[in-house]
Amino acid sequence: MNAVLPSRSVGSRSGSSSVFRTAARMEEMRPSAIREILKVTEAPGVISFAGGLPAPDLFPTAAVARAAAKILAEDGPAALQYGTTEGFNPLREWVRAHLAATVGHSVTPDRVLVTHGSQQGLDLVSKVLIDPGDPVLVENPCYLGALQAFRSYQADVIGVRTDAGGLLPDALEETLATAARRPKFLYIIPNFQNPTGVSLSAGRRAEIARIAAAHELPVVEDDPYGLLRFSGESPAALSAEVGMRDWIYLGTASKFLAPGLRVAWLVSSDSRIHERLVTAKQTADLHTSALSQRLVWECVRSPETLAAHVGRLRAVYASRRDAMLDALARYLPEGCSWTRPAGGLFIWVALPALLDATALLRRATEQRVAFVPGEPFWVGAPKRNTLRLNFSNASESRIEEGIARLSRLIGSTPNSPGLMSFKTKLTRSA
Amino acid sequence: MNAVLPSRSVGSRSGSSSVFRTAARMEEMRPSAIREILKVTEAPGVISFAGGLPAPDLFPTAAVARAAAKILAEDGPAALQYGTTEGFNPLREWVRAHLAATVGHSVTPDRVLVTHGSQQGLDLVSKVLIDPGDPVLVENPCYLGALQAFRSYQADVIGVRTDAGGLLPDALEETLATAARRPKFLYIIPNFQNPTGVSLSAGRRAEIARIAAAHELPVVEDDPYGLLRFSGESPAALSAEVGMRDWIYLGTASKFLAPGLRVAWLVSSDSRIHERLVTAKQTADLHTSALSQRLVWECVRSPETLAAHVGRLRAVYASRRDAMLDALARYLPEGCSWTRPAGGLFIWVALPALLDATALLRRATEQRVAFVPGEPFWVGAPKRNTLRLNFSNASESRIEEGIARLSRLIGSTPNSPGLMSFKTKLTRSA
Repeated sequence: MNAVLPSRSVGSRSGSSSVFRTAARMEEMRPSAIREILKVTEAPGVISFAGGLPAPDLFPTAAVARAAAKILAEDGPAALQYGTTEGFNPLREWVRAHLAATVGHSVTPDRVLVTHGSQQGLDLVSKVLIDPGDPVLVENPCYLGALQAFRSYQADVIGVRTDAGGLLPDALEETLATAARRPKFLYIIPNFQNPTGVSLSAGRRAEIARIAAAHELPVVEDDPYGLLRFSGESPAALSAEVGMRDWIYLGTASKFLAPGLRVAWLVSSDSRIHERLVTAKQTADLHTSALSQRLVWECVRSPETLAAHVGRLRAVYASRRDAMLDALARYLPEGCSWTRPAGGLFIWVALPALLDATALLRRATEQRVAFVPGEPFWVGAPKRNTLRLNFSNASESRIEEGIARLSRLIGSTPNSPGLMSFKTKLTRSA
Repeated sequence: MNAVLPSRSVGSRSGSSSVFRTAARMEEMRPSAIREILKVTEAPGVISFAGGLPAPDLFPTAAVARAAAKILAEDGPAALQYGTTEGFNPLREWVRAHLAATVGHSVTPDRVLVTHGSQQGLDLVSKVLIDPGDPVLVENPCYLGALQAFRSYQADVIGVRTDAGGLLPDALEETLATAARRPKFLYIIPNFQNPTGVSLSAGRRAEIARIAAAHELPVVEDDPYGLLRFSGESPAALSAEVGMRDWIYLGTASKFLAPGLRVAWLVSSDSRIHERLVTAKQTADLHTSALSQRLVWECVRSPETLAAHVGRLRAVYASRRDAMLDALARYLPEGCSWTRPAGGLFIWVALPALLDATALLRRATEQRVAFVPGEPFWVGAPKRNTLRLNFSNASESRIEEGIARLSRLIGSTPNSPGLMSFKTKLTRSA
């Protein structure tokens, strides 16, 4: 066996000099243009309302350090060894008790799957449920990471209309009635939605549950922000509504503890789906970091400590939300409107209809302020005048200064053609 | 809007009472029967050679504890906050330098993607490259987790013949010549392969590289065990061979540091594929745990400390390999053969042709010893008389006792019909 020559034609090459040939699904997975623009806004001196970032000064850093020392001293080898795909059992048991106490789900711990962040949960749900072309229903606008996950499995993502109260039950009914094929599931964030900050009322929850049950429509409920409620009573999970048939519920430690640990969980109504999700997780990464899971468990296992920590987060985030709402009222020009969330991390702003928030962001470094334009959150025709503001990451004084900058950015160019959306310009010239 | 009734037929329901409908790919992702059998062998008193587990007593637990204290004291907020998808930059720079020093790859740090274990790397590679039905070439037998990842994206996995020296270049050439469609890539573990422990010679590496280049066949090289070489010189990566065209190389901290941290990396020859892998990673889980990445970096950044640690692992694992080879020679009955790896974690055993290792495992609790039968590692017709033994996890005395038990298990039932494979029985009765 010596010199080896190609024994057949090797087929056509792409224009690139690479011999890699990517899968068809990659056509749906283009890097986000917004992400590229946002990189520019990471310059020093920029006040950023862009990321969904918790406040790092409120991370329980000392508690995590104590937990790390304890775990590595008492249980080091197990914390550094391979673990089971399903997750660290004491954490799974804590999730069970936590869900029973907070959102009304009664599941056994063996129905809990620990994931490497909720984004992985969405990826696994997609892998288990979505065939190319399958319709999936989402709130419109919808969390961008969920859209990316569903599209990466070539879902036909269908946006359901929302209003100031969130998903419209009538619109859900109408979408189900007119869909060419039965959707695989409805994806929804009932509490302090990303990007709008809006929560569903009790009435809407009941209606959505009834529609889902009647149409045998599984509900994938994402609840990263539920604990971050600043006022009022926390409702039960949408998926825990009476009559709800099949569901998957995703929770996470990212927003109330620390996102950098990448520890989240999901539970589901159906043992067969649970098994499939476990198999998908095993294939995706074997299991979630054994040390990270133990760190989270050590930090949440005392109900008193956890309640004190969450209480502090709520107080600080509520003040920051108030500071942002005050600044928006004070600085934003006529014709702007925004949501008034009772919790979570985000406020959603609608600029005057002529303004294009993506074009605005391209000029954001002028005023050293960053945000996420609404465009990528929309399914179908985007409302280009919308944008998302995060209020949890910056101090109150920085929030005020940032909103003042944002208003200067808006005010300095209200009639600049570059800021008007194409559609709007067409409408005006028509 | 009140009572809501289904407005159209909801289509047929499956036999299950669940309204979930799973994706077609889940037909390829059935939970492993072997995994279920292995659960039974987790009983106390069982000596297990089944897992690919590093020795937990050799984990640098104290060093990880010191690193955790330092990171959380000096850089706590960043270690607990969201990070970039590509990974923690100092770790990426370390990977660049490490690969240049150990396997001959010269890449820039921006070509390094940190993953949540190499299993995630395999999942991302599959997601980016595999369309349903795409041929993918693997060594036969092949690492089970890779088979699962490729099949989860509905690849047509084609096994290429191997012998005691690993992948046969002639067989690769023949497979490429007869494949109905050009394979998307060749997946290969050139050092201390899982499951066989076999390494490729310099001659075979050169031949495989030449064949891959001639056929424009990208090579996905998985190298989790390369640092665990007990004797001889470490060769450059297969993907660093002269003339190699496009490749992806996967490395990991799991085997030389600690698998429970779930920190691995991949590098690739092509910037476009790198970008696609980053996009896939962002969709899969946003990024790898920020704390875990910093822990790994703190533990590997001193070359002297790392060399001392790896030296200790090599010495202990070499002794354990020797203990297992000695015990196999002493205890196993006539007609058995096995590999003699120069590193890694595994020895591959061929029992007499009449014996079925899967059937043997079902009775393994009788002798309180566990292993992984060869069956699931094979593509196509399995050699049922094969099995994989891990030598890194148990002490030398436990290894000797475990192999004695294994030989009793084999010896006690050499002619039991239940232990014979179906194929073998057919042959005998013919």
